[in-house]
Amino acid sequence: MQSHRSRPPRLTGALLPPRGGHYHGRSMAGQILIGPISGFPEWSPELRIAEQRLAGEIREQYELFGFAPISTPAVERMDVLLAKGGIQRQIYTLGRAAEDTDETSLGLHFDLTVPLARYVAQHGDQLTFPFRRYQIQKVWRGERAQRGRFREFTQCDADIVGSGSLDLMYDAELAVLINAVFERLGVGDFAVRISNRKILTGLCAAHGLDAGQTAEALRIVDKGGIGQPEVTARALSSGGFSAELAGAVADLLACEDLDEAAEVLTKAGAATTGITELSAVVDACAKLGMPPGRLVCDLAIARGLDYYTGTVYETFVRGNEGWGSVCSGGRYDDLAGYFTKRAHPGVGVSIGLTRLFDLLVQSGRVQAGPSTPARVLVTMLDRDRFFDQYLDLARALREAGIPTDVYLQPDALRDQLAYAAAKGFAYAVIAGARELDAGTVALRDLRTRAQEQVLIASLPARVG
Amino acid sequence: MQSHRSRPPRLTGALLPPRGGHYHGRSMAGQILIGPISGFPEWSPELRIAEQRLAGEIREQYELFGFAPISTPAVERMDVLLAKGGIQRQIYTLGRAAEDTDETSLGLHFDLTVPLARYVAQHGDQLTFPFRRYQIQKVWRGERAQRGRFREFTQCDADIVGSGSLDLMYDAELAVLINAVFERLGVGDFAVRISNRKILTGLCAAHGLDAGQTAEALRIVDKGGIGQPEVTARALSSGGFSAELAGAVADLLACEDLDEAAEVLTKAGAATTGITELSAVVDACAKLGMPPGRLVCDLAIARGLDYYTGTVYETFVRGNEGWGSVCSGGRYDDLAGYFTKRAHPGVGVSIGLTRLFDLLVQSGRVQAGPSTPARVLVTMLDRDRFFDQYLDLARALREAGIPTDVYLQPDALRDQLAYAAAKGFAYAVIAGARELDAGTVALRDLRTRAQEQVLIASLPARVG
Repeated sequence: MQSHRSRPPRLTGALLPPRGGHYHGRSMAGQILIGPISGFPEWSPELRIAEQRLAGEIREQYELFGFAPISTPAVERMDVLLAKGGIQRQIYTLGRAAEDTDETSLGLHFDLTVPLARYVAQHGDQLTFPFRRYQIQKVWRGERAQRGRFREFTQCDADIVGSGSLDLMYDAELAVLINAVFERLGVGDFAVRISNRKILTGLCAAHGLDAGQTAEALRIVDKGGIGQPEVTARALSSGGFSAELAGAVADLLACEDLDEAAEVLTKAGAATTGITELSAVVDACAKLGMPPGRLVCDLAIARGLDYYTGTVYETFVRGNEGWGSVCSGGRYDDLAGYFTKRAHPGVGVSIGLTRLFDLLVQSGRVQAGPSTPARVLVTMLDRDRFFDQYLDLARALREAGIPTDVYLQPDALRDQLAYAAAKGFAYAVIAGARELDAGTVALRDLRTRAQEQVLIASLPARVG
Repeated sequence: MQSHRSRPPRLTGALLPPRGGHYHGRSMAGQILIGPISGFPEWSPELRIAEQRLAGEIREQYELFGFAPISTPAVERMDVLLAKGGIQRQIYTLGRAAEDTDETSLGLHFDLTVPLARYVAQHGDQLTFPFRRYQIQKVWRGERAQRGRFREFTQCDADIVGSGSLDLMYDAELAVLINAVFERLGVGDFAVRISNRKILTGLCAAHGLDAGQTAEALRIVDKGGIGQPEVTARALSSGGFSAELAGAVADLLACEDLDEAAEVLTKAGAATTGITELSAVVDACAKLGMPPGRLVCDLAIARGLDYYTGTVYETFVRGNEGWGSVCSGGRYDDLAGYFTKRAHPGVGVSIGLTRLFDLLVQSGRVQAGPSTPARVLVTMLDRDRFFDQYLDLARALREAGIPTDVYLQPDALRDQLAYAAAKGFAYAVIAGARELDAGTVALRDLRTRAQEQVLIASLPARVG
């Protein structure tokens, strides 16, 4: 009997990319050989149950803060994808065996921010602003797969988009949302690192850098890492930037507080707007209940993508900083500018669900539980005689709202109980002539192995 | 002030394909023009909320029957997609601007059955059989978009897969599951039409047809529609099939009950296994609580796809039969045969969520409700003086689990209330010096426009 096995559930996912050659092709026997595709993760049922629970908790917090769900197609026009921030070689384009001019210029979205910009530009006259939306969908990037970096992964985005203007206080609302989500997820300690892009761009402008040079300088600062001002300064120098700029950035990153940072900026002849905004956001976060120490000002946070113009966030699970940020985002003052003349400033964050879940699994914070959502298995001790009664039991449990599986194969009871143990049900219902004649069943608690007689009429209440 | 408008929420979706030329390119002002892509539907927030609720109810019923969630990548290798049932010209292939030999042979899945077969073959030694899984994901098909037919749509699949063998009674379990789901969805009256492919294939075999001819004959019968045996017979004749076969099929389709059908088969020298199986499944469905009249034997149901080998189902919303089947499926005896030598018989169904939701919206069975998941809007009557208190109110409501939006723009109260009306909150909280000094707020019921003073301490309980 090969129909099931009783060993504990295991991970079947192919989360880490396989090393070297993929096997691929037809075997001698004519079967197509199958194996994981690098960067496209897949989980076992027991872990998928855990991942789905995680996504549900994120959704619940987003809705608690009044964000409405939207869903956009996985597919956008290439010129939309490339309008702002899209890296052409990372985008998967679509093709078809048949000719179809309509689709030669379509690609899979690589994030949920560009689709949001297009959605707001396209449907703006039917939306109510400020528009709070969340979106939980897969995205695709043709990058080299490595730990924490996938080619297909799920993002959970929450954004607030204004029309014309959007108050700075929404930036605080988003930081508080991140805090609420991660507290709910129970991932252990975490830090929301926050800065304002205007601080670094102001310093660059004061040193005479143009937009392109500033973007490049910010990328270098962003890569520099946390708490290493001198490393960043060296990288800027070897990147062709002046010793003055490198020194000023190092001074800025070494500041102990925002007042000190304001002095560095003033000394360099740079605007302090970024400091003023950051300070206001940090104050409001405290008022909105964000615990001290959870929000950390870090002027080295610059974010790689070009579209951020103010507040920027990155979130790290403490002790797992090496996995990278699990929730990033920021303020953009004109995201939809490529698509519409209306000004739509916004602020948003994105949780990398796949990376976060991978981190939680690999670090032992998520344990694989049952591989079934059902609590109860109805077994068939004497299928020939009592088939109808067993079906009745299953129906009654389901009608009472109790997730229930019923074993319909004509196998021995020990096989049915092995199935129950392997899947991780809480209870098995067992009944023969003796029990059914008395209007009862035997209810086995599969964790304690205790067994008791229960009246059929009180079974749903007993296991519910 | 253009930040919101008070007219009622409207559908922003582009569900029906636009007629004629898509607009596409850059406008004079340098903006990228954007518009719907034919066949890729997108809903307004208020309808997305309704669609998400629908998906949640389906998921809940699948779990009630003990099906475990899995998720597979959207991307499979082309030889996997083409192994069984894949129509090459309908499959979207993936490309990349950069060279990457690894990905030249990848495509988007066009259903969730082929990925399931691959999943079971790949991870079979870590699964417990019979394996009950459900899967709610988008799929892509490069077909001509038309009513009820999309290029990107969501399927909700539930399958039970055995190892070696799978009892016929699981076919009944699936029919009962369909019934439970559609009763829960409240779509009005519906019919699950059921047949067994062996009935028609047996008849074809008795008339000397080979497998290819049989598949072609079944496609013709499947297209013939409900209750029109003579139309089907004519189509078979003009399709090159013998008058004897056409006549026998017409006789079969005209049968009033299964006994009569068995006689037709016996007269033609065909096996009656299909009738025996269908009869057993129908009996078990009744025992499992399926209401009479809900399950309808219809021997014209053949299903287009080749992989079905026994029971087949199609579900129609009564009065909307023209939309086509909203839930189809059946029994396959060897789905994973292209990928593994192990025999994995299974039975499953697939709900076309996008088509079903489109039907419900277009036929007025789903009404657009609020465009926010939040119940309460906290307004800011005097932002300068009481900002902290307003934030405290929002925090307290959220901590009590009540989805709450807070209006952070420095706008007039009438604009804030217009925002509240447009989004469809149940309540607005309004407070100035008078209320706050008394430890109260004004609570406005936005449907009745009634307003009352409520103690801040009892606000969560009052609106919860």
